[in-house]
Amino acid sequence: MKRIFSVDPWLIQSHELKPEDKRLQESITAIGNGYMGLRGNFEEGYSGDKLQGTYLGGVWFPDKTVVGWWKNGYPKYFGKVINAPSFIDMKLVVNGHKVDLAQDSYQNFSLTLDLHQGLLSRSFIYVGNDTKVRFTFRRFLSNVIKEAALIEVKADVLAGQATIKLDASLDGNVTNEDSNYGDRFWQPISEDGNEHTIQMVTKPNPYGVPRFTVLLKQHLRLNGAAYNGDVKTATGIISENWEDTLQAGQSVRIEKDVIVITSRDVVPDEQVERAAELMYELQAKSFTENLTEHTAVWGSRWSASDVVIDGDEAAQQGIRFNIAQLFMTYHGEDERLNVGPKGFTGEKYGGATYWDTEAYVVPMYLAVAQPQVTRGLLQYRHDQLPGAYHNARQQGLKGALFPMVTFNGIECHNEWEITFEEIHRNAAVAFAIYQYTAYTGDESYVNHDGIEVLVAISRFWADRVHYSQHQHKYMIHGVTGPNEYENNVNNNWYTNTMAAWVLQYTLARIPHADHDVMQGLAVTDEEQAYWRDIVDNMYFPEDKKLGIFLQNDTFLDKELRPASSIPEDERPINQHWSWDRILRSPFIKQADVLQGIYFLNDRFTLDQKERNYDFYEPLTVHESSLSASVHSILAAELGKQDKAVELYARTARLDLDNYNNDTTDGLHITSMTGSWLAIVQGFAGMRYDHNQLRFKPFIPHGWTHYSFKLNYRGRLLAVDVTAEKTQVELLSGDELDVELNGQIVHLERGDVHA
Amino acid sequence: MKRIFSVDPWLIQSHELKPEDKRLQESITAIGNGYMGLRGNFEEGYSGDKLQGTYLGGVWFPDKTVVGWWKNGYPKYFGKVINAPSFIDMKLVVNGHKVDLAQDSYQNFSLTLDLHQGLLSRSFIYVGNDTKVRFTFRRFLSNVIKEAALIEVKADVLAGQATIKLDASLDGNVTNEDSNYGDRFWQPISEDGNEHTIQMVTKPNPYGVPRFTVLLKQHLRLNGAAYNGDVKTATGIISENWEDTLQAGQSVRIEKDVIVITSRDVVPDEQVERAAELMYELQAKSFTENLTEHTAVWGSRWSASDVVIDGDEAAQQGIRFNIAQLFMTYHGEDERLNVGPKGFTGEKYGGATYWDTEAYVVPMYLAVAQPQVTRGLLQYRHDQLPGAYHNARQQGLKGALFPMVTFNGIECHNEWEITFEEIHRNAAVAFAIYQYTAYTGDESYVNHDGIEVLVAISRFWADRVHYSQHQHKYMIHGVTGPNEYENNVNNNWYTNTMAAWVLQYTLARIPHADHDVMQGLAVTDEEQAYWRDIVDNMYFPEDKKLGIFLQNDTFLDKELRPASSIPEDERPINQHWSWDRILRSPFIKQADVLQGIYFLNDRFTLDQKERNYDFYEPLTVHESSLSASVHSILAAELGKQDKAVELYARTARLDLDNYNNDTTDGLHITSMTGSWLAIVQGFAGMRYDHNQLRFKPFIPHGWTHYSFKLNYRGRLLAVDVTAEKTQVELLSGDELDVELNGQIVHLERGDVHA
Repeated sequence: MKRIFSVDPWLIQSHELKPEDKRLQESITAIGNGYMGLRGNFEEGYSGDKLQGTYLGGVWFPDKTVVGWWKNGYPKYFGKVINAPSFIDMKLVVNGHKVDLAQDSYQNFSLTLDLHQGLLSRSFIYVGNDTKVRFTFRRFLSNVIKEAALIEVKADVLAGQATIKLDASLDGNVTNEDSNYGDRFWQPISEDGNEHTIQMVTKPNPYGVPRFTVLLKQHLRLNGAAYNGDVKTATGIISENWEDTLQAGQSVRIEKDVIVITSRDVVPDEQVERAAELMYELQAKSFTENLTEHTAVWGSRWSASDVVIDGDEAAQQGIRFNIAQLFMTYHGEDERLNVGPKGFTGEKYGGATYWDTEAYVVPMYLAVAQPQVTRGLLQYRHDQLPGAYHNARQQGLKGALFPMVTFNGIECHNEWEITFEEIHRNAAVAFAIYQYTAYTGDESYVNHDGIEVLVAISRFWADRVHYSQHQHKYMIHGVTGPNEYENNVNNNWYTNTMAAWVLQYTLARIPHADHDVMQGLAVTDEEQAYWRDIVDNMYFPEDKKLGIFLQNDTFLDKELRPASSIPEDERPINQHWSWDRILRSPFIKQADVLQGIYFLNDRFTLDQKERNYDFYEPLTVHESSLSASVHSILAAELGKQDKAVELYARTARLDLDNYNNDTTDGLHITSMTGSWLAIVQGFAGMRYDHNQLRFKPFIPHGWTHYSFKLNYRGRLLAVDVTAEKTQVELLSGDELDVELNGQIVHLERGDVHA
Repeated sequence: MKRIFSVDPWLIQSHELKPEDKRLQESITAIGNGYMGLRGNFEEGYSGDKLQGTYLGGVWFPDKTVVGWWKNGYPKYFGKVINAPSFIDMKLVVNGHKVDLAQDSYQNFSLTLDLHQGLLSRSFIYVGNDTKVRFTFRRFLSNVIKEAALIEVKADVLAGQATIKLDASLDGNVTNEDSNYGDRFWQPISEDGNEHTIQMVTKPNPYGVPRFTVLLKQHLRLNGAAYNGDVKTATGIISENWEDTLQAGQSVRIEKDVIVITSRDVVPDEQVERAAELMYELQAKSFTENLTEHTAVWGSRWSASDVVIDGDEAAQQGIRFNIAQLFMTYHGEDERLNVGPKGFTGEKYGGATYWDTEAYVVPMYLAVAQPQVTRGLLQYRHDQLPGAYHNARQQGLKGALFPMVTFNGIECHNEWEITFEEIHRNAAVAFAIYQYTAYTGDESYVNHDGIEVLVAISRFWADRVHYSQHQHKYMIHGVTGPNEYENNVNNNWYTNTMAAWVLQYTLARIPHADHDVMQGLAVTDEEQAYWRDIVDNMYFPEDKKLGIFLQNDTFLDKELRPASSIPEDERPINQHWSWDRILRSPFIKQADVLQGIYFLNDRFTLDQKERNYDFYEPLTVHESSLSASVHSILAAELGKQDKAVELYARTARLDLDNYNNDTTDGLHITSMTGSWLAIVQGFAGMRYDHNQLRFKPFIPHGWTHYSFKLNYRGRLLAVDVTAEKTQVELLSGDELDVELNGQIVHLERGDVHA
């Protein structure tokens, strides 16, 4: 655990800059607007250790898979989010000396991410030989003009005389740290000194993945007025200069307005023109006016989704940081995009779509955003069905296999033990349809596009199981469950359970589905009978004596010992142990059996839940960012309130406190929903199955009060919990029956029920 | 199955050149001399599809491992045998036209590998517009001067007038097909027109693997006399020209003498001088004289190792081809080298050391070569103990883990499911010590260096097992057995059995071991007691009802069906099925349980052998080149003679008939011992455990006679089998008792026992 920013309800702030924490600082101060995002790199440059990172939603490159011995069905490439041309650069030279906080003397360093508005500010006093200059930066990515980045630097000369040179540039000569051989993914097309643009294209690939062309345009303002400096170009670079000599007491303010266009929206030939239009629109307003409009969007988001905690500022900061970072990654504006595990904050996993979306993001977005935002996430999968069919075909299987990692529906991770073993994700895609339908009550998706997805997934499972003559059961061999600390296991209880659930749910939905869609799918009675047989005769490993479900066939044969027996200096084990040792250990990365119990919560008795929790949680090292929240929710349900709160803290401040020692790579965006789920589903006990919204709240020790808001079936509800009572208020929408601690309460607008 | 060379007892010959079979032809006509080797590429070049391949023993490059998500214990690089600078090139231009059999008209094509002497000959009549020229090539790699390659081309003008230009070159601008990104492994150092040399060095690597420097030198002879043509150089290339105009009836003969020196033997600065010395030595004799000396070496090899078969020419050709190719790969001259699965015939697996050596090569070499040749293979492993200790440490384990693939003792394959799961090879290394000791009766190795290897391996196994409280047994989880069509299984019977065997054998050898060596190893009584406990309480999965050992814990849960149910057009399954489908199928690539029964043959009853054979063989697709021989031997023991012969044919002619449709990549060198083993251990029933050489022969249907020779404890024996009788003759050495069909016969020199 490492905390480098101070605790504050709305600000992420630090007055220190430690070179060894630079990457961590960059991850935590990343900002985004759904269209693009970037790490907290410094505008003036920084010569110390850092991870340069700017990312554009949906812009990626397929990097060749390299293995020892190729086998059929291996994914041909590893899809990588690519570090995009850098647009923040504003090199500063003071009296001939290039400002570089890795080398220079400075005072009063301050760095602040304001969660109200996704605004990053930074200031420091540069101390030169005979001069002191305070530089203050502000930057944000507009929520109004998604293609716009606004960056401002103010220089106040505090002592002596300062000749300040500023060199603002766009730079396409960027690389990825994770490229296989240091290769560049971008090729320059042009630099235009008149238009102040560079245009770059991703290098060719042999996989038929489209190449992306981007155009970046910049213009400067000096003290608020348009400014034209000397423009220079080099391959893939354009830069513009400003220079002046200021005396003590004098100030200057320079703004850099940037427009970033990609061929996802605008064909290459029209990018110059489109960028000019947007730049005109952007520059028609001042920095302050643009910021005000941008902040207003945040205001409306917060008013529908803020979670307030009194009595625990660290917890308060954690949940707000998570909500802000989630919304900076995805707020449903572009159905072609999804929620990448690292969003726009790093290369690893960045930007690609994982099962995280369905398992962790959907249940929160259903409540904090309008239904169409979540439906967009469902539609994304439906629209990628051709890719999912392709993935199944690659394995010689029927139906559709949604990818473990993707940008376009085609599996794009390059490790076989992930791509065709971790197939449980295929059930999560179906489960999201159930969640959406159960929460919103809207059956229009499941009866049309949704049933196409369900049938495709069911056909996959029906072909992927095999019948064991030896045990007279259907089995699923050769999988990796949610616990990625085991590979290639047989009969992972979670996978078997969810596969059977998908078949059962699909069978249940078919009678309600759109007739024409069903005609197209041509599901025969015979096929349905076979699915039913699988549901009835699926093998679910369990140990009756222990009263638990078995993570897989031979789990009990392991050398079982609690995670608490692992020495602290060997944690996290994935950074200290060999993969061999981890795979053979009994230690669990994230909820596996318990993930199934979490999803299908209404199927199990409290006793079953408790026995499984008590067996598996002590074996769990929670080294996946997705782990703590599910355990927190189950602990809450089982009345293990201290454990629930402990695990909440871990999920809420995973990145702020760098729990898993890997936030340097980027934020754990998709698991950030965990803190919200832990509060709402855990502490407040919210459930919504069987068409009934329910709450069963408790309040953590030390908290005096917490409250949150929910969108539910056209209504906005506010839930407010203190030690004494729970208040549920219907802020807008039609009357509603809600179950509170087992009692039905009838809510009308303006009513407050406690 | 595809046969492109005609059947002949001593020749591999073809009169056809089909472009689609070029790679297959190149593999089968590869030649080598233990020091280097090359594929059957054409001297004059060939513009059609081909695999250019020249390889130098022990010269390799560590190519970076690229995976999605790095984990501790992964091997950092993939060791690759690298395509060496090409030295055969002799471009031919006739009347201004470059000769290229992929494009030209030609007649009377002939290509012959003479197994007597490892001589490759080729001739064809080039048909130009107004001319016909017969070109005849011969080449061999000297068994006398290992660094020498001798190439000869004769041109006979048959019709018209021919202006012939010859351009003989050394070319360092070569690549590997399997390089990750088409990168070059060689960098040029110099080209010297006076010395007729090029010098190249392998590119730098960050893994501390030494760079290899090679120097190649060429000189021409014209009609047997030294010839100096125009020499030109380019980066990494030197070439020398000859040109003349010949009339019909005229001939010319040009020889190219090549010396290849590597920094494995000669430091770079001394390579020019050493090459000059060797060239002088080489050129002191004519091509014919050099060939005669070279052939004499082959003569003495064949006299001690030839297998004669009457009644089945295809079988005869198969075994001779295999013996010749094995000896061209390794004949024990350099203890730093080993027997690569593809020898010098291809890139894949090429040149690296696998467990094939201990499991398949050692048992044959013991009998066909002098004991020191096999002992060299054992010594190779001992000398690589530091690397093996390193490999175990990488996994957080004690003792030594011999690598699955290596050049220097350090694991150099890049797939985790191979490198730290296929650990059974660690037992094979120990088993080779047992085999050597049991066959030769020489205990000097096992009591000194051998015990160091045994203890190191035992310590590995003792740390790699775990104790299952649930089953009260020691277990081994997370392995891949010899059947590579399953990964990451628990309690692979073969692995558990061999691990326990190693501990038991080590315990048995310790009392006899050298006192000083044992002092150094510091094996405590406590440690030995723990090993004994593992031996006594190891878990061996079995099914009592079926009377079989289980390949692993859950093998019987698979969808069991015989391999005969696989449609012919889906064979081999590794070329038609996804890896997922293969892993989950019941189909076995090569002997697994049966490998253990083969190794520890004296431990099992005939009934046990038969039940296991009858269960597993029908599930086996024999898609490893190592599979058929073991099954053939067991089938022979069980009296299933037809099956034994069928499987013999498959192993003996695996490459000649391209059974597995992959000989295009190179020959299956290490599995070539299989045909010898099938005849000697299978048909002739040879065993040597318990200090007793035994035979129990039968003769395959259709064969009239077969005979082979054995080196055994300082003696040379000849075994001759006909349908009527078996003759065992002691050709040299002291008297000996041999068991023949259960009867002890006493042999003295010159005696023939039938």
